[in-house]
Amino acid sequence: MVDLTLVGIGTGNPDHITGEGRKALRSADLILIPRKGAAKADLADLRRHVCAQVLGQTAPRIVEFNLPVRDAGGDYRQGVEAWHDAIAHVWAETISGAGAPRKVALLIWGDPSLYDSSLRIARRLSPVPRLRVVPGITAIQALCAAHCIPLNAIGAPVVITTGRRLRDEGWPEGADTAVVMLDGDCAFRTLPPEGIKIWWGAYLGMAEEILFSGPLAQTGPRILEARAAARARHGWIMDIYLLRRQEG
Amino acid sequence: MVDLTLVGIGTGNPDHITGEGRKALRSADLILIPRKGAAKADLADLRRHVCAQVLGQTAPRIVEFNLPVRDAGGDYRQGVEAWHDAIAHVWAETISGAGAPRKVALLIWGDPSLYDSSLRIARRLSPVPRLRVVPGITAIQALCAAHCIPLNAIGAPVVITTGRRLRDEGWPEGADTAVVMLDGDCAFRTLPPEGIKIWWGAYLGMAEEILFSGPLAQTGPRILEARAAARARHGWIMDIYLLRRQEG
Repeated sequence: MVDLTLVGIGTGNPDHITGEGRKALRSADLILIPRKGAAKADLADLRRHVCAQVLGQTAPRIVEFNLPVRDAGGDYRQGVEAWHDAIAHVWAETISGAGAPRKVALLIWGDPSLYDSSLRIARRLSPVPRLRVVPGITAIQALCAAHCIPLNAIGAPVVITTGRRLRDEGWPEGADTAVVMLDGDCAFRTLPPEGIKIWWGAYLGMAEEILFSGPLAQTGPRILEARAAARARHGWIMDIYLLRRQEG
Repeated sequence: MVDLTLVGIGTGNPDHITGEGRKALRSADLILIPRKGAAKADLADLRRHVCAQVLGQTAPRIVEFNLPVRDAGGDYRQGVEAWHDAIAHVWAETISGAGAPRKVALLIWGDPSLYDSSLRIARRLSPVPRLRVVPGITAIQALCAAHCIPLNAIGAPVVITTGRRLRDEGWPEGADTAVVMLDGDCAFRTLPPEGIKIWWGAYLGMAEEILFSGPLAQTGPRILEARAAARARHGWIMDIYLLRRQEG
């Protein structure tokens, strides 16, 4: 049985890594890095960069593997389940092909607990590895830090949701602050913008960081334009936003 | 005008600090540490410990100040406003009494964006300092990491709320996962426990860490007992929990 450590690495700035994350990576025997063909969106370059910055003179073996492609047709949940099975299979093959590593580490974008499936995939391995999670800076925190804003109003709740839900269900029930993740299509466009402010960020913590904030009605169109231009220029984009409406 | 950096330090494990946080603390001229009389709940000892671990040979000046006491009577919001004014006043006096520091840093428990008022207090200073926020590991992430669980169900939303709201309003609208913070009184007791699972943690990331998880009906009473005992033993407690109900 191997020890598998999921190390949250933050959002692309090697300085987001905690002392705990640094130690976990340095003490690994094997580090796995996923690749998605030629697409830059796999962030493999960024993971390699983080490894180069963090590992120093220590030398865990680094092995890259090709991430299976998710079948986007059919039922969403079933597609995800099959995809996770396929990834677990590739992890198992890659680990066993790398000799007999005792301590394996994966670099997880942001934090392993937030919209990341590595924990679920790891539990499909047989035998299930001894799991350890090292928390990392999420895009939510990187967004709030970059804008110098609190996430919550005083004593008030916050909803974390997805672009898909915002588009399908409108403003989420239960809070006047919503953080929207996994949104490839600017679902904020589908909201009536009156009384809503947006704080948006892309490439948070990285040299390419872009920030916009203001009333949604005026700022939304500027974000759409800047996002399309940045995506074309860099070949990929990761972004997130916080919406706050006047207390209802 | 001073530069004021709010450095998220995580939940008491010096290894929660990021590379960015370490650099920000080391390059400060002055670090402010709040004290609340003799109470251990001010975490001043922990902040001193973090400084001792992080600062190494660098030597920013460390100055402690007495945190004003919040007037718990009267209107909650007005009480908080007056308290923030009083804290801003003490910060200003402490900074000006420390000569002419150019770079001032504060160690913020968890992350400066989440249920922390330092940003709001900083904006009451005159002149308003140049603010910078360094994100830190929140108790939410430390909780999920300790339990090796994801925060969200696949593609599903999450509500972050407070003990006060859970007690007053019941299960929060809009999500089947709720994280409850700022709960000094185990508000989970007020919920009908059927179909709810709880993951609870105290002193997360520290040597004293305690974890419980399971169905709320059985686990709730064990948490109440363990929490009371730990609080008596240590003189203070910080805890947080995640509740998940079967999808409604």
